[in-house]
Formats: sequence, C-alpha cells, structure tokens
Amino acid sequence: MLDAFFDPKSVAVIGASADPGKLGYAVLENLVKGGYAQKGEIYPINRKADEILGYKAYASVNDVPHDIDLAVIVIPYLYVPAVLRECGKKSIPAVVVITAGFRESGVDGLERERELIEIANTNGMRLVGPNCLGVIDTFTPLNASFSAGTPPQGPMAFMSQSGALGTAILDWAQAGRLGLSKFVSLGNKADVSEIDLLKVWGEDPNTNVILIYSEGLPNGQEFIRVAREVSRKKPIVAIKSGTTEAGSRAVSSHTGSLAGSEQAYKAAFQQAGVLRADSMSGMFDMALALGYQPPLEGDRIAIITNAGGPGILVTDALEQKNITLARLKIKTRQTLENYLPEAASVANPVDVLGDAKADRYQVAIDTVVKDPNVDGLIIVLTPQAMTEIPATAEAIGKLSQKTDKPILACFMGEAEVEAGVKVLRKYGVPNYPFPEGAALAIRAMSDYREIRKLPEPEYVHYDIDKEATQKVLDKAASEDRYAIGDAEAWDILKSYGLRVPNSQLAKTADEAVKFASEIGYPVVLKIASPDILHKTDVGGVKVGLRNAEEVRDAFDLMLYRTKRFIPNARIWGCQVQEMVPPGGTEVLIGMNRDPQFGPLVTFGLGGIYVEVLKDVTFRIAPFSRREAEEMLSEIRTKALLDGVRGNPPVDKKALIDIILRMGQLVQDFPEIVEFDINPLIVYPEGQGAVAIDMRLVFTKND
Amino acid sequence: MLDAFFDPKSVAVIGASADPGKLGYAVLENLVKGGYAQKGEIYPINRKADEILGYKAYASVNDVPHDIDLAVIVIPYLYVPAVLRECGKKSIPAVVVITAGFRESGVDGLERERELIEIANTNGMRLVGPNCLGVIDTFTPLNASFSAGTPPQGPMAFMSQSGALGTAILDWAQAGRLGLSKFVSLGNKADVSEIDLLKVWGEDPNTNVILIYSEGLPNGQEFIRVAREVSRKKPIVAIKSGTTEAGSRAVSSHTGSLAGSEQAYKAAFQQAGVLRADSMSGMFDMALALGYQPPLEGDRIAIITNAGGPGILVTDALEQKNITLARLKIKTRQTLENYLPEAASVANPVDVLGDAKADRYQVAIDTVVKDPNVDGLIIVLTPQAMTEIPATAEAIGKLSQKTDKPILACFMGEAEVEAGVKVLRKYGVPNYPFPEGAALAIRAMSDYREIRKLPEPEYVHYDIDKEATQKVLDKAASEDRYAIGDAEAWDILKSYGLRVPNSQLAKTADEAVKFASEIGYPVVLKIASPDILHKTDVGGVKVGLRNAEEVRDAFDLMLYRTKRFIPNARIWGCQVQEMVPPGGTEVLIGMNRDPQFGPLVTFGLGGIYVEVLKDVTFRIAPFSRREAEEMLSEIRTKALLDGVRGNPPVDKKALIDIILRMGQLVQDFPEIVEFDINPLIVYPEGQGAVAIDMRLVFTKND
Repeated sequence: MLDAFFDPKSVAVIGASADPGKLGYAVLENLVKGGYAQKGEIYPINRKADEILGYKAYASVNDVPHDIDLAVIVIPYLYVPAVLRECGKKSIPAVVVITAGFRESGVDGLERERELIEIANTNGMRLVGPNCLGVIDTFTPLNASFSAGTPPQGPMAFMSQSGALGTAILDWAQAGRLGLSKFVSLGNKADVSEIDLLKVWGEDPNTNVILIYSEGLPNGQEFIRVAREVSRKKPIVAIKSGTTEAGSRAVSSHTGSLAGSEQAYKAAFQQAGVLRADSMSGMFDMALALGYQPPLEGDRIAIITNAGGPGILVTDALEQKNITLARLKIKTRQTLENYLPEAASVANPVDVLGDAKADRYQVAIDTVVKDPNVDGLIIVLTPQAMTEIPATAEAIGKLSQKTDKPILACFMGEAEVEAGVKVLRKYGVPNYPFPEGAALAIRAMSDYREIRKLPEPEYVHYDIDKEATQKVLDKAASEDRYAIGDAEAWDILKSYGLRVPNSQLAKTADEAVKFASEIGYPVVLKIASPDILHKTDVGGVKVGLRNAEEVRDAFDLMLYRTKRFIPNARIWGCQVQEMVPPGGTEVLIGMNRDPQFGPLVTFGLGGIYVEVLKDVTFRIAPFSRREAEEMLSEIRTKALLDGVRGNPPVDKKALIDIILRMGQLVQDFPEIVEFDINPLIVYPEGQGAVAIDMRLVFTKND
Repeated sequence: MLDAFFDPKSVAVIGASADPGKLGYAVLENLVKGGYAQKGEIYPINRKADEILGYKAYASVNDVPHDIDLAVIVIPYLYVPAVLRECGKKSIPAVVVITAGFRESGVDGLERERELIEIANTNGMRLVGPNCLGVIDTFTPLNASFSAGTPPQGPMAFMSQSGALGTAILDWAQAGRLGLSKFVSLGNKADVSEIDLLKVWGEDPNTNVILIYSEGLPNGQEFIRVAREVSRKKPIVAIKSGTTEAGSRAVSSHTGSLAGSEQAYKAAFQQAGVLRADSMSGMFDMALALGYQPPLEGDRIAIITNAGGPGILVTDALEQKNITLARLKIKTRQTLENYLPEAASVANPVDVLGDAKADRYQVAIDTVVKDPNVDGLIIVLTPQAMTEIPATAEAIGKLSQKTDKPILACFMGEAEVEAGVKVLRKYGVPNYPFPEGAALAIRAMSDYREIRKLPEPEYVHYDIDKEATQKVLDKAASEDRYAIGDAEAWDILKSYGLRVPNSQLAKTADEAVKFASEIGYPVVLKIASPDILHKTDVGGVKVGLRNAEEVRDAFDLMLYRTKRFIPNARIWGCQVQEMVPPGGTEVLIGMNRDPQFGPLVTFGLGGIYVEVLKDVTFRIAPFSRREAEEMLSEIRTKALLDGVRGNPPVDKKALIDIILRMGQLVQDFPEIVEFDINPLIVYPEGQGAVAIDMRLVFTKND
C-alpha cells in the first residue's frame, strides 16, 4: 500500500543541488551512496542545472520522460504547493516533503499544510511529512533522507515523530548498536501516520520489531485497533513523550481529576498490546532482545557468570522485574559438577569462576541451555585476568544459533570487552553492559509472550433500553441542563440494567410520609433540585429516618434550608429513597472522554481509596469481558474485593457486568462527556450491586 | 590512619613472579607501570628469583634491609598465615591479601581467615582482603592490584566488595567514562571495611564523591554513624546488592512480616545521608555529576536543545524525578529573542533550532546561565546536518568553567557525537546519551543538597521508669515466657509514659462486676492467659458490655469456652477494661531487630492499611525527632492523619512523642526482639493517644 515509499522503481529529488551545504545535495548523495543507484532510476529536479552528481537533471517532474514512483521535496516552503500539484499531474503515488515551515510554524503554516493535504487527496497521492528527515529502507536499499550516512541492516523498523530524535537513533545505529530495516521520520504527519506504517510494517518480512517514538496519537481508537492486530504478529515498542493538553475536558468529577493523558496512554498501549518504553535506552534494551533473539517461552531464566557479585546484581535486577530464576534439574547440576572446578557454583546463578576461559563458559552454557527447566539465559562476563573475551563471545554466539531459547549477554566493562561485544553483535546476541538492561529485555520478552497469546477481544452487547436514556438526555437538554444526577441518573442506570434504590419524588411532606411507608422504614430523604449539585453541603440529605415524624421534620427543614442557601434554586421536592442494606463494599465506576482515545472508563474502591490513594484503573471503551476482569485485579486494594478481616468476597460477576454495561452506555451516547457512579455498593457473591449515586455530564448534540 | 595503603614509602610484593601468566607478575607490573616506580621502593619477594622486572628480589620480607610500608600477598593460601606472621615481625603496617581460599570457600577457609585476623590484630597490622583485587591510588600514584591497566585520575573513590565488579568498573574508567582517585577491592573484609574507608576518604582532598558497592554491612549502626558524618562533607553513592538472610528473626508480628533487609537498608541509607543507586548505570550517572560539577543550589533547571522532541524527553524525565523546569526571567527571554532566529523557542526548554551552530549554543547558554531563576542547565544536542559537535562541546566546556551552576550535557547519538563527548570530558562536563541519566543525576544533586543541609540529629531522652519494664521482663523470663501481651505489655507502655486503657484483672465474675462499675460501663472483657495469644479466635474478647449481667455472662462464657478450646491453658481470670472513646484513628507502631542494623521501628495506619496496603515506613533507632516527624509524612495514607472527609487532624505531636519513646525502649532493652502496638488509637489534636494492644517478644539474657 505504501510500497512506493520503500521500494520505488524511480525517485525524483525535487530541489536536488550540487552544493554540498544544501539538504538537496545530502538527499541525492544518500540515494546514490545508500545503494539505490544500482537499484532504480534517480532524477534530480533543478530548474538551473543540467546534471548533478552525474545524473541528468530536469527542470520539473513533468519533463522527466519516465514514470516516477517517489518524489522527495526539498525546496523552500512557498514553492511546495505548486510543485506538489505538478507531482499530482505526473501521477506520482508517493511524496516525501522534507521542507519545514508548515503546521509547526503557526497559523499561516497550518493553512499551507491544509493545502498540501488537499492537493495530495485530490490527486490520490500519499505524503510523508512535511517537516521531516525522510525515509530509509535498508533492504531495498533506499536512503531518501538527509541523514548523515546510512544505518546498517537489521530487524527493527523505526518511526519517529521527531526528526532530531531520528538523527540520534540513526547515529546509534551507525555506531553498530542496532540494525534497522526501515526508518521513517513522520514530521507533521499531514497524511501518513503511525497507523499507516503499522499496517504495512506488520506484513514486512524484513521487520521483526516495530519501534515508535510519538508525541501524540490523534486517531487513538484506530491506533488501538490496528496496533492490536499487528502486535499479535510482531512486537511493537513505543515511547510516548510529552503531555497532551486536556483541552475542553471537564474536570468536575473524580474520574475527571484522575484521568489524564497519561492514564489514557497507559490503557491504550495495554489494550493494543504495545510494549511501552519509559526511556530511549529502555526502548533499545527491549528492541534488541525482541528483534534479534527467539521468543521467550517461559519466565525461568538461568544466569551463567564468572563472578558472584555481578551474578547477584543480575538476580536482583530480574527480581525487580518479577522474573524468577530457573531451578536447574539435578541432572544438569551433576553434569556441571563433572565439568566445572570444585569451587564453582552449579546452582543458578551458575558461577564458572573468575579464571573461566571460553571452553568452560561453553560447556556450562551448553549444559544449561538443554535443561527443560530453563527458558532463557543471561551470560555474565567480567573482564578478569584469564578471561578470553572474544573467544567466549564466539562460543556464546555459536551456541545461540543452535538453540531456540533466547540468550542475552551481560559483558560488563567497556574498553576490554569491546572486542567481545562486536563478536556478539555478529551473531545477533544483544549485549547489556548493565544488568538492569538485560532484566528489562527479559521482562519485555515475557510480556510479549502474553500479548501474542491474547485472544481477539470479544465485545459483549447487552440488550438494553436505549430509548429511555435518550429521553432523559433529551428532556434535560430541552431545559438547557447538561449535568444530571439523582432520579434522572437512576433512570439512565435502570435503562442499562443496573439496580438503583427504590425511590419516589415527594412534592409535599405528606407525600413523603406516604411514600416512605410504601418503601419501608428506615428511609433516606434527599432534596430534589437540578440546581443543587452538592446536596450534603446545604443539609440536603438525611439518612436513617425511622418514622413519619422524622420524615416530616426532615422534609420541612430541608426545604427551609435549601431555599435559604440557594434562593433561586428550582426545588422539585424531596426524593424519598430506600436505605440500601448494610454489608456492601463501596466502589466507584466513572468515565471521562479523552481527546485522543475517547471514552476512558475508571474503576476503583470508593471513599478514601479514591480520594486519598487515587487507587483506580482505566480502560478505553470498547473493552472485552477479559479486560473488565483485569481492572478488578489491577487496583492495589484488590484484596478488599476478595474479602479481608472476615468479610466475604464481593460479587465480582455483577461488578464486571456493570463495568461492561457502562462501557456500552458511553459508546451508545458519544455526547456523554463524563460520569461518576459513586458509590456503587457491591454486596457479597451472588447478591449483586446497587448504584447509590451518579452524576453525569453531556454536551449538546450538533 | 590507612595511609600506608594509599601512600606507602615502599611496597613488597610477596609472590612476585617473572611469569606473565601469574598474578604475582601482574601486581608487580602494575606497580611499575602505574608510576609507583618513580615514587617509592619496590621489593619483589620470591624464594627462588634474584631479580624480577629489573628489581632485586628477596626470599622473605625479613631479608629486605629497609622498612616496608605495604605488603601485597599473592601466594597460595596455605602459606599466607606464615608469611603474614613474617610481615608482623617486620612491623609492616599495611597488608593486602589478594589470595583467595578463605571465608568464601567454606568452613576450613573461615578458620584460616580467623587466623589471619588474629595475626593482624596481634601485630597491629591493618589488612585489606583476603580474596580481593588490590588497592589503587591514582594520585600517589600506586597501583597495587592485578587490574588490567591503571584507571585515569578523577574525583571518585570506589570501594567494592566484589572484585569482579571492580574489574568491570576499572574497565569503564579506562574507556574514559570516569576518573578515579582511589579504588579498593574489599574482598572478604576480614579487617578493613567500608567504615574504615569512609573515615579516611571523607578527609581525602582528591576525592569529591565516594562510591560503594556492598553486599552486606554487618556493623550497620556504626556504618550509619560514620556515613552520616562523611555525607555532610561529600556525597556517598551506594549500591546494595543481594538479600540478606533474615537469620533468627522472628516473624510472628506484622512488623516482622513487613520489615526485611530491604526496608532496613532503605532506612539506614536515608538516615546516613547515603544516596542509593538502583543500578550500576544509575550509580555512574549520579557520580559523574556529583564528582565533576558544582553543587546544585536549587531545583530550577533550564534545558537548551537543538530539537523539540529531545527537549520534551528531557522535560518528561525531569518531571518523573519531581524536578521542575526554571521559569526564565523576561529579560532573559528578551535577550534570547535578540540573538536567536525568530522560529526559536525562548521559553524553557530553549530551542535553538536544528541549524544551530556552536555560536548560537554559546549565546543561549551564556544568557540562560546568568538568569537568577536558573539553578542548573542541561544542554541537549542531536547531530543534525549543520551541527558543529566538537565546537559546541568546546563552548559548553568553557562556559562551565565560568559559572558555579552545574551544567550537564545530553549529546544524543554515538558515532557522530563521540568527538564532542571527548571534549566535554576534558572540561568535566558529564554527558548523558539518554535523558533519564541526566534526570537521575539532577535528582541526586538535589537530594545531596538537602543531605548537606541536615542538622546533626539530636536524640531526645525521656525520663521513664526503666525499672518497671525490667520487672515485667524478669517476671516473664522467670516463668520461661518470652512473648507477652495484655496487662504486662501495658505495664511496659505505662512505664514509658504511654496511655493505656484502665483495666483490672478479675479472678471471679463478682470481681469483674465490681471492677466494671469502678471503671464505668460500657467495658471490655478479655480472657487473661499467658497461653492464649489469639484471644478473639477462642471467643476470648467481648466488647461493649453495658451492665453487670452482661459482664457476668461474658465472664462465665469466656472461661467455659477457653477451657474447652485450650484445656491446658493457664487462666488468670479476665481483664476488665475501659472502652476507649470513639473518634480516634488506628495506627500501628512496631519494632523488629534487623541482624545488621538493629532496632527497626515501624509506623503506619492500622487495620487494612497495614494488612492490605502494607503502607508503613521504617527508621532505625536511635532516631531524632525530625526523623520521627518524617515517618508521618512518608506513608501514602498520610492524608488520613491530616484529616479527610470532615475528620479533624490527629494529634501528631502525641504520636511523634510515642514513636520516640518506643525508640528509647528498644535501645534500653536490647533483649526486646520485636513488638507490635496495634492498634494505637490517636485522637484529634491535643487529645493524645491510647495504646489498646501490644504484643512483645524478647530473648533470654546471656
């Protein structure tokens, strides 16, 4: 689909230059030196030159007497629209606009960028950039960028929203740290975005792992959908930088104050199966193992080391990442005892001792790698007097090619171990100079194993009374009210199958007494007014009213007080409400609409757990039953759901059902901006849950 | 005090060899090549040779006709004791035993090591090792080790319990990553330990920062005392690896199950002002900034970058470490506007744009560094087409010498930036290829600023009735009971000035009724028996008894039930106890004795906060009032102490007082192994606290 960007039959460089100080020179030179000269046709476009770098130059793409697959534009921004139109006329399918001066430079630039999009769309062209570094495919080979040199081939495809970070990454690659299959500097993402590249790189046989540096994912829901499919096939590692402006997001709810861009990204990456890197170094640590080594089929890791201290450091680092050491089989230990000196440790970590030469490493690795209790190996080497560094690396490399278990190296040091590290690279064995890098890599491989196994999400659909909710919203909107609660909110919840307290709206004290006796004492009385949001603040809630007298007194007092506090409030009367039975656990379910990813649903325990501990978790709707189940086990206070201090476990089935129904609600009604159900009282297993209170905010439909 | 190790007038190498395959050759060669040949006398000791590497050899140290300051022993372990005795006879003050085969190799080895200690003590010798790499002082210069080459000079002194890790570090140093003042491989620490080195390195003018890799600190209390003094003078960065066996530690208490070696180290390093590194790379990141740059006097950091993306990454990394960006003064921004291109960003992060050459960096840094709102700078560089890498590094280096604000560099990439990084090193400007390294360094500098400012801890001493506690313990011990609770525990708490509920031991139901009316209804009744630890499990606790009848019934029922459950239990009767007033907050105060650091005092909120959230914090006694105060603000649920949901704040003063009194108790009675006060009910400000229950375990006095 984007073939013309990565494997074009011909490339035009618009703005090609013979002046080595210009970008138009760098791009042309990279095309030539990057190996494309042997692969396809190169057409420099320059109004004044006849020939550049030995290639015949043309004044315009329309002067080129052959088809052009890819055009790279490096001319001043004012001329870009006109030239892009020429490309359209020439039916060039793919264009890279390197030129800056568009959206990133203000309002005028944004206007110019819109023009580019318009031209590209009209002519059926795909466009990378503007304001980018270019595109590289090391297998074609094609270097259509102004990078300094071409990176070595390898299994990693990298897309970067930041061009500068792209240059840094290419520099690491050229230093031999990593090999790339493809590289795209996305720039302003006027057309081609992360989503487009994910789709094609997911099918690219030269790419084992996809790396993303992104500063924002405007089309978040589609990103999740596409990434979820691709991540089942090959690992995606992403680094998300910067914080997104919350924009018009309302923050009157608990959920609103807890849900930020960070929470949305966390949920999105988790649901999409994207491995998240906290840092650039972390991204490379993960990508090296995922890209060069076979999958890790279990979490039992063996360590082979020539020194105790570093062995402990690696063990600690693994433990910090929740990775367990393998328990070696007795047979393995016996074999090791036969081959290793007496003082060696044959339990994991296996210590081959400071005087170990390559042969001793080799026999230890060869023995341990065959142990069925071992899923992966980390080989630690410290440069000691007798250590044979390149020979040991050679042994590790050869053994790594004979096994389908991943092997990582941890050659500690720099000057002395460098020769060994080079040998390791030749064999695709990643080296981590520090233990924590290796541990992070193992963690990522372990996480990716689980991601690969995940079933396609199945979305539950409940048969609910959507009409009833629509009516509530319409009525409120007709009165210009966009924040609703109480009985209206209950009507919505009821229409989505939730249990709410029995309740009646009483206009007079007499009515209140009558309803109370119907509902059954004790009852709760609440002021009913669309203008009073925080009822308790004005004495608008009384609980545990035990008889007619108490109800009558409370009714009169409430009306008196609320009128005094908020003279202009519309008072509908008082809601007479069932006292729900004791013995339940208070939880909160909420929703807030993220500007990029859409409906972000929150779950956590209520009261101080949400207020003080902020112990909540998030999912982006739609989510599956499995994902809703995960939410219950992600909060720190999950033990309270399982029952502590003699309390029985709560009705998790009912709770999950409610979370899923609320996920459906926020999809059915995109105009709902946020809500809190707080508290939802969950009773012990089999006894369900009752939603006590809900506040919901929605917007006008356009 | 340890001068002879670092600046000896003469060195004997016992086991010196002319065979390049032997350690005895490597040590002698390092002495010679490391520059010591020009500094002092070198005496190879070898029974068979006349001359080695051009130096006259002797059969024994006693054949050397001059004084010897330092002896390095590299002979098979069987001969070490005899040779050490010869060193004693020769009055050699300092000995490094490189030879392995001692404590680390089992019971026989431990016996041999004890012999070494005995010989050293008898002869007044100090001993480094055995089983170590040796000692280096780059300023003397002295390389008395078998390291591969000598590290470059620098401000960092490094002590390592692991020799292998030592070699890795020396290798990093030789690659130019860091410069060392001193290096000691501590080996088995038979004599010289971390504590000894801290004392002398604290006074060493060549050392700006002390680095420790340790696997255990047996003399923990002294380590804290010494490190606290030294850390006020220069930063100490430590990495603690591995977990210490809990040994005989009892774990019947909450505190016991929460307090592990990890918690003890955390508290110890915090109280000692030691900066803790989580990883080797983190240690170097911190040490480079602390060792080479001036102190960071505030947390307002400015970033200067030639690309937006990396600027965001650095901002994010700083934010993750709770470091704030500086707000540049208007004047600064105006000056920047004058000098930078229009498209540049003059707010922090300052973006000098991708085409910035060295001069533009220079003017930006020069302007920003003078802003009084800026405490430190991070200069980000990505290798772009126009970037002048070494020239920019030169500019940064020169500016760094003119300011007393720390400047860190973040040159991203590898191959292309290498030349610049070398220039930066020349000027002592640390470079962090990844933003998170720079952020970690800034965090460490900020933490160290606070450590330097800390006052000497003042230990409070309460005038308490120690005798009364002694009596309780003696009585229990005389009956062979080492776990006590209830009234006995209350007596201890009372003698340390704590409030406990009113209570009387009733032997009969009549007595119980009599006491209850004296105490005032409602009361609590509890079975009193030294053999029943979990009273509620056997129905041994009844609360809220409102009258004589209820007390009588409860008494009889309790006796009947407990006798049926535990037939052989000694029953003393029932404790009649005051019901403490409602409205308090439950907290837990506990203690557990750590094998290395001694009494580890715990504080946290009671109930589910400790059981489910394990939300507790620790200090090692003795601790100051300030340290006790810190405990209250370290728990995640600290908001509950300040009052939430309309509750008033608790009586923190009383709580701190109680924590300090308990700190005194565990110091007064080293035989107390652990206790839990759970719950302690803390009332609102000014209303104090009541200890409801305490369980305490102590050991036999020897």
